[in-house]
Amino acid sequence: GYGRTGVIYYENDTDENETQVISRLRMNIDAATSTDQGVDFGARFRIQWDQNQDDNGKLNAGKLYVTSSGLTVEVGNVDTAFDSAGLLYANELGSYDRQVGFLQGAFFAYDSDAYDNAGRLGVAAKYSIAGATLRASYVDPDQTDSSSFVGDNEEFSLAVDYTWNERLELSAAYVTDGAGIEDNDIFFIGARYAVMENARIGLNYVDASNDSIVDVGNSIALYGDYTLADGLTNIEAYIANNDQDDNETDNAFGIGVNYDLGGARLGASLHRDYSENVTADMGVRFDF
Amino acid sequence: GYGRTGVIYYENDTDENETQVISRLRMNIDAATSTDQGVDFGARFRIQWDQNQDDNGKLNAGKLYVTSSGLTVEVGNVDTAFDSAGLLYANELGSYDRQVGFLQGAFFAYDSDAYDNAGRLGVAAKYSIAGATLRASYVDPDQTDSSSFVGDNEEFSLAVDYTWNERLELSAAYVTDGAGIEDNDIFFIGARYAVMENARIGLNYVDASNDSIVDVGNSIALYGDYTLADGLTNIEAYIANNDQDDNETDNAFGIGVNYDLGGARLGASLHRDYSENVTADMGVRFDF
Amino acid sequence: GYGRTGVIYYENDTDENETQVISRLRMNIDAATSTDQGVDFGARFRIQWDQNQDDNGKLNAGKLYVTSSGLTVEVGNVDTAFDSAGLLYANELGSYDRQVGFLQGAFFAYDSDAYDNAGRLGVAAKYSIAGATLRASYVDPDQTDSSSFVGDNEEFSLAVDYTWNERLELSAAYVTDGAGIEDNDIFFIGARYAVMENARIGLNYVDASNDSIVDVGNSIALYGDYTLADGLTNIEAYIANNDQDDNETDNAFGIGVNYDLGGARLGASLHRDYSENVTADMGVRFDF
Repeated sequence: GYGRTGVIYYENDTDENETQVISRLRMNIDAATSTDQGVDFGARFRIQWDQNQDDNGKLNAGKLYVTSSGLTVEVGNVDTAFDSAGLLYANELGSYDRQVGFLQGAFFAYDSDAYDNAGRLGVAAKYSIAGATLRASYVDPDQTDSSSFVGDNEEFSLAVDYTWNERLELSAAYVTDGAGIEDNDIFFIGARYAVMENARIGLNYVDASNDSIVDVGNSIALYGDYTLADGLTNIEAYIANNDQDDNETDNAFGIGVNYDLGGARLGASLHRDYSENVTADMGVRFDF
Repeated sequence: GYGRTGVIYYENDTDENETQVISRLRMNIDAATSTDQGVDFGARFRIQWDQNQDDNGKLNAGKLYVTSSGLTVEVGNVDTAFDSAGLLYANELGSYDRQVGFLQGAFFAYDSDAYDNAGRLGVAAKYSIAGATLRASYVDPDQTDSSSFVGDNEEFSLAVDYTWNERLELSAAYVTDGAGIEDNDIFFIGARYAVMENARIGLNYVDASNDSIVDVGNSIALYGDYTLADGLTNIEAYIANNDQDDNETDNAFGIGVNYDLGGARLGASLHRDYSENVTADMGVRFDF
Repeated sequence: GYGRTGVIYYENDTDENETQVISRLRMNIDAATSTDQGVDFGARFRIQWDQNQDDNGKLNAGKLYVTSSGLTVEVGNVDTAFDSAGLLYANELGSYDRQVGFLQGAFFAYDSDAYDNAGRLGVAAKYSIAGATLRASYVDPDQTDSSSFVGDNEEFSLAVDYTWNERLELSAAYVTDGAGIEDNDIFFIGARYAVMENARIGLNYVDASNDSIVDVGNSIALYGDYTLADGLTNIEAYIANNDQDDNETDNAFGIGVNYDLGGARLGASLHRDYSENVTADMGVRFDF
């Protein structure tokens, strides 16, 4: 898990404080066992507390998995294929890992909070071979079918990641009825290349325009990061474009920096979103 | 704790899916200390998530205990005597440990969920000597007596287990006002004998017929299990009879199998209950 | 954490049982990491179950901290300065650490339960040097300012502790708008002196009389403890005075005893409060 805290500034027109201290504390509780045949079984709960959202730490729904010979199958609160695509979040900045321009749309993911519906069922599989990772997942928002609600369709997703020669990363993913919402089909593709040993450039594209109620249009993001000669300071930035009609501007961008403390990192970032609002953050994150 | 998952089929006449994936994840959080005099103090919380029932993992009420010279005394969310009788659940089958014929009635047990009433108090004692284990327990559903409700009587229970020569197991238990419900007195007796090194036969009887609102009649179950020559495959079965008037049939039965993976097990079972409905399951369980 | 259980007797005029079994189970979940520069980052959740109050174990809000060179800074669910003053609770007796005479007033502390408001923010600092410990803390009951309620003022508190020659302990603390309540300013000072190697005498004074809605007047407490020659039995007592008008008596007192089991302790205490009601307890507490 990890802990992180710091200050986030949101430009807004309401009475809310624009600058607030935002912290998160996440602890994973893992358990595992191995059989005589070399098959590994394991399980995870997570406890997470998000300042301003939770009045106490929250347990989530459990995940169970079995691993053997490079194949992992998960049941329960699974890591979905689409959400696990290697580069989907590659343009996030700073100690909070935030970005405001690349709108991935709505889909299921490993849920750090409680389920919305106790009847939710997830199954996922991951297979790794020779630099490639294949993922597939299935989420039924309510396997009991005891009630009907918006978002009770079954979600399927696929993802593939490939790394070539330790320099080029490729990532693609597809989801149908994302988040259980009818017609919410999303396609993602991304690539990142290490132009130098300490510099990478990437390009992401997501087609989240569809006939569903959660259509967020198509987005493209160009991003990169550069590590200074000290080997500890990492400068990163992105510029993104989205084609929705109600954007005040079609371009968003962000710039950030991380300083590696070895076990922890200091970070800061500054963004402008499609509503032309500015947000910035500065904080520290430590992993344990 | 343990994790288990798989598929359960329930024959039913409603709109619910008859076949569903059912998983459970249980983790016990134990802490203990020893005094200079050799007395052990300990405590337990449990986190449990049951698919279809819980939208996230649930903490239960705490148990505290002290152990010395074979005597254990528990306070709080205790293992009650009746529920702990050695053979009470001996006819359960498969990876889910299910059975449908031996109706034990209603009584308090160690509660994996939250209490129904924060004022619940449990005290239990266990004493082991020379192959015999004696248990006694007391549960007051609300020691504050600040409100009155159905099931607020005090429950007392006793149980004794005895193993003779590692071949014969005997078990008996008695509870008054089980689950705090007036007049709900239940008596149980069971025996199991190892007819061969790899085969056992048992007979259980429970008198849960009484004048209470949770009367489930008298049940008898004949059960046994047989381990194949591979030493890993265990075949098990039971046939049970219950004398309630509203049964469609008075006989229920089940057959199951478990395959030991060493640290985990695969299991399956098939049952027919007193409503002549069939239920079956197949799954995997791993302990950690 | 720790577990404790036993019996508490409360003299009262209601229908409630005057004698009840009261247990608590507390487990702290800690995680920490160190950076290459020797800075320690850490975090804590707590699971706590209080009999009669909680129907299951409760998680609290998270605390994050960073420590370096004797300075600790906490964010989130912090240990406030006033609540951490070294002698503030020094007259508590028995295995339950109870006292009824020294009325400290209302202020924020590390919260073992869920927050009342998810927007609560705490920041605290502690610095230790040469036998002295300085503390400062700040709690904003709702940093989002999205609603207004009684107790939404910002609380500031300061505390200093000093130990001289391992014999004399001095402690002072001040809080403004304690518990976020307007005008609730409280001042505390205390001293304890080891008159012999096995005997200590202390004097505490708290001025919690103010114009707020939680005014509890001024209290003074004289207290001491004496360890018998066995080195295990500790006798302790206090006498306290409070100047509120609605007291039936202005004097309260208590006497208690603890017996050290090494890793656990047995304790008992007897008190009479300002309403002339008697309360007593006897129990065991074990730490792990």
